[in-house]
Amino acid sequence: MLKNLVEKIQKEAIIIEPNMVKVDGFLNHQIDVNLLAEMGFAFATRFIQKIDVILTLEASGIALALACAQNLKVPVLFAKKGNNTLHQDNVYTSIVFSATKKSEVSIYASKKYLKVNMKVLIIDDFLSTGAAISALLDLITQAKAECVGIGIAIEKGFEMGGYKLREAGYDLYSLAIIDKIENKRVVMRDE
Amino acid sequence: MLKNLVEKIQKEAIIIEPNMVKVDGFLNHQIDVNLLAEMGFAFATRFIQKIDVILTLEASGIALALACAQNLKVPVLFAKKGNNTLHQDNVYTSIVFSATKKSEVSIYASKKYLKVNMKVLIIDDFLSTGAAISALLDLITQAKAECVGIGIAIEKGFEMGGYKLREAGYDLYSLAIIDKIENKRVVMRDE
Repeated sequence: MLKNLVEKIQKEAIIIEPNMVKVDGFLNHQIDVNLLAEMGFAFATRFIQKIDVILTLEASGIALALACAQNLKVPVLFAKKGNNTLHQDNVYTSIVFSATKKSEVSIYASKKYLKVNMKVLIIDDFLSTGAAISALLDLITQAKAECVGIGIAIEKGFEMGGYKLREAGYDLYSLAIIDKIENKRVVMRDE
Repeated sequence: MLKNLVEKIQKEAIIIEPNMVKVDGFLNHQIDVNLLAEMGFAFATRFIQKIDVILTLEASGIALALACAQNLKVPVLFAKKGNNTLHQDNVYTSIVFSATKKSEVSIYASKKYLKVNMKVLIIDDFLSTGAAISALLDLITQAKAECVGIGIAIEKGFEMGGYKLREAGYDLYSLAIIDKIENKRVVMRDE
């Protein structure tokens, strides 16, 4: 667990619905660049093995992916949302079901930048049910590339995403895990 | 002009419609972290005066804003797209007409992070007609904050956005300016 992140969540996270945690003060709207650099360094240290590209999903994954990439000196590829009508044949596509927005969204990545045998590190801000990560893994599979690790800033430990990914054998590293939400407050995992 | 960016545009930019320039290879889909750091440093050096926050628009402005913020040690605030139905009273909103997508999109920023008298630096990837920048300026005006500068990676010099902003007295700094598009190739301003 990353101490400064855990403390920031405890201090500033806003609970909205039973399960919605908002961290607009330092990650998802306003970004704290010092904390971001610390998170990026933690990911880079953990995944220092040979990586060709860091894959994330626009918009809120971009900052974390970059902060990690700056240490590893590799490019970032952010999957885009929406339908790429311009070059359907040149992209891999998948679908994410957003529990927050209660809707499906198409995502895509260009075949030009996600290629066979590439070693890919996935970085994202939140892990809940794992829908976004599954879609990114789907893009990697289509490209016949390899996911060498998954770095998450905030995992909701009470959702199934983390469990499923670890069961499937992925090297998943979360900087902070929320064990439960009680009385509109987060209870963080203490490891 | 930033030499490495100008050269990268000349080498890699893809022209799609008469006026559409795609730089998916190093900025808008895959991100070249070395070039990004150079761009961020150029912005920071140019706007080294007292700045409270860097304002940009998701998704493609985030990387540039962060690269600049890391040098200036200030937070980044990225305006979000869509309607914030959750907290209508707590956000400033504006409208951007996207010429690329031929549609309007609402954007918003929280009143909690964009505040009266703040000195705000706007950073964005492209400047064409200036629709996105106008909407960001609108948010700043609503907050009674002050725009102290505008940093753009790639300005389309043949569109009116840059002219209008300079005429209005804004301190606009573009790292690369495309003067025209000829035979599906960009002609860069040479200064």
